[in-house]
Amino acid sequence: MNKLSTKDYIDGVLACDRRVLAKTITLIESSLKEHQDQAKKILDELLPHTGGSIRLGITGVPGVGKSTFVESLGVYLVNEKKKVAVLAVDPSSTRSGGSILGDKTRMEKLSVLKNAFIRPSPSSGTLGGVARKTRETMLVCEAAGFDVVLVETVGVGQSEVEVSEMVDFFMVLMLAGAGDELQGIKKGILEIADSIIINKSDGDNVENAKKARQEYEMALHFLQSPSKLWTSPVQTCSALNNSGIEDAWNTVISHSEKMKEVGEFSSKRTKQSLSWMWSMVEEGLKNRFNNNERVKKQLPGIAGKVENGMTAPTVAAEKLLSLMDKGYI
Amino acid sequence: MNKLSTKDYIDGVLACDRRVLAKTITLIESSLKEHQDQAKKILDELLPHTGGSIRLGITGVPGVGKSTFVESLGVYLVNEKKKVAVLAVDPSSTRSGGSILGDKTRMEKLSVLKNAFIRPSPSSGTLGGVARKTRETMLVCEAAGFDVVLVETVGVGQSEVEVSEMVDFFMVLMLAGAGDELQGIKKGILEIADSIIINKSDGDNVENAKKARQEYEMALHFLQSPSKLWTSPVQTCSALNNSGIEDAWNTVISHSEKMKEVGEFSSKRTKQSLSWMWSMVEEGLKNRFNNNERVKKQLPGIAGKVENGMTAPTVAAEKLLSLMDKGYI
Repeated sequence: MNKLSTKDYIDGVLACDRRVLAKTITLIESSLKEHQDQAKKILDELLPHTGGSIRLGITGVPGVGKSTFVESLGVYLVNEKKKVAVLAVDPSSTRSGGSILGDKTRMEKLSVLKNAFIRPSPSSGTLGGVARKTRETMLVCEAAGFDVVLVETVGVGQSEVEVSEMVDFFMVLMLAGAGDELQGIKKGILEIADSIIINKSDGDNVENAKKARQEYEMALHFLQSPSKLWTSPVQTCSALNNSGIEDAWNTVISHSEKMKEVGEFSSKRTKQSLSWMWSMVEEGLKNRFNNNERVKKQLPGIAGKVENGMTAPTVAAEKLLSLMDKGYI
Repeated sequence: MNKLSTKDYIDGVLACDRRVLAKTITLIESSLKEHQDQAKKILDELLPHTGGSIRLGITGVPGVGKSTFVESLGVYLVNEKKKVAVLAVDPSSTRSGGSILGDKTRMEKLSVLKNAFIRPSPSSGTLGGVARKTRETMLVCEAAGFDVVLVETVGVGQSEVEVSEMVDFFMVLMLAGAGDELQGIKKGILEIADSIIINKSDGDNVENAKKARQEYEMALHFLQSPSKLWTSPVQTCSALNNSGIEDAWNTVISHSEKMKEVGEFSSKRTKQSLSWMWSMVEEGLKNRFNNNERVKKQLPGIAGKVENGMTAPTVAAEKLLSLMDKGYI
């Protein structure tokens, strides 16, 4: 690709030039140090222009109809004169080769719209790395003037928690089904949901969906909401029939309004930024520890003694930490 | 107190000399470096003699009748020819001045028994510090030949999680009450419970307790068990009438037997030891970071810029970490 200057990138993003936007994200996703350094400079300049969108996280297990839902919601928002960016966090894409947004034809109605921008998950990296890139991509899209950033993720490992910590509102898609299907709900998923959408409430399934809604309402009754000011509603929806999409979105809006009223909207974002900074500091400290030559050499032996009950964990931890004292790198 | 040699401590603990046992724990709880060094040596020698007890964690909010329950269970176990140690993790004791086991008269039936040993919570320190001391005290009690170590905690902050991660079985005491009382259950508490005991199932309250049992069973139905091999039961109990105590204990035993059968009993302990080691390594790394002079000086400014949206968290984290590169201490 033609080499752009840092200023070209910044100007292009601010003008919402889609070609430049895509290239900027590619730069963010690159693992080359030169690219990362440039991406950092761009991000720093774009930062004052961020913060204007609504950040919406959406999750659901495979088969729940997530792509169709995201597409329907995206088309609805574009019709409402909003500019919509769709990003993905998919830690499984590296393994399976298939990414949740990798196949753009799956969103053929949305992808042709001028005011929609779809970006699949970065195709490599750990979940932490993918999540970081998605956070930064989100900021770039905001600087480009998108009104809504949808961050889609699959129900794999920790990805939902990562996404819920970078958005204003976290939506969980569920399927209607017998009561027993509720069993084995992913640990903690209901507790981080700002709303639950029972999808595929169409045809013969309408009654099941209603029943499921009641069951999830009862389940939520046993748990704490993400915020004391908000009771997470359970809603039904048919992405196929395009019903319930507007209601789902209105819930996002009334949540934002309520949170802005009491100042929790921006304080949540500030908290998210600080805890993101801290988690990266911690990650950095751990990396330095794990890459320390003395630690690498002695860790297996020391951990082995803890496993065999020959060394107390306290003593082992102190030994390992003392290896760092002899010089940082 | 008379100064004991390291050997005196070790021999005394192994002989279950209660005076020496108490002194050893005092040594573990001391914040003097000299004492800590000696405690480490003692612990290392005792370690091969540990592992023989059943480690049982018990929690419940104030008012649930926890002390009476622990005492009844303790007396029952002593009558069953078991030696029982009761320890406490109470991060609130530093603030309130009153510790959960501080007032020994609250367990007057148990405390006079020859085969029972009661030790209140260390009266100072952070939760992490208190938890670490309790873990080590638990090991010392095991080396002294106690068959059961009960670790009691109050429902404050993270203390339940800390305790659940140091025991074989984690029991949660609850009160009977209307359905609405279930609301606001502490986040995640049901998910780490190996059994739930509805206490005060006596007098007029028997029917309420039965109802509560059904409600908790339903709530558990929505959640994952701590182990795939175990469905956490909900049982009723009256510590006052001494009913249900035996059942509560039998559940602990059948859990242990089941876990031993499949090898999960010891693998859980190994996992606990390793993750304890890792959490102490992480704590140590964070302490070193927070105590770094350059970090201390620059952190407020850098964090402030993140709060104001002037610096991206990624960039801030890298700046902070680079301060460490210039020398470790």
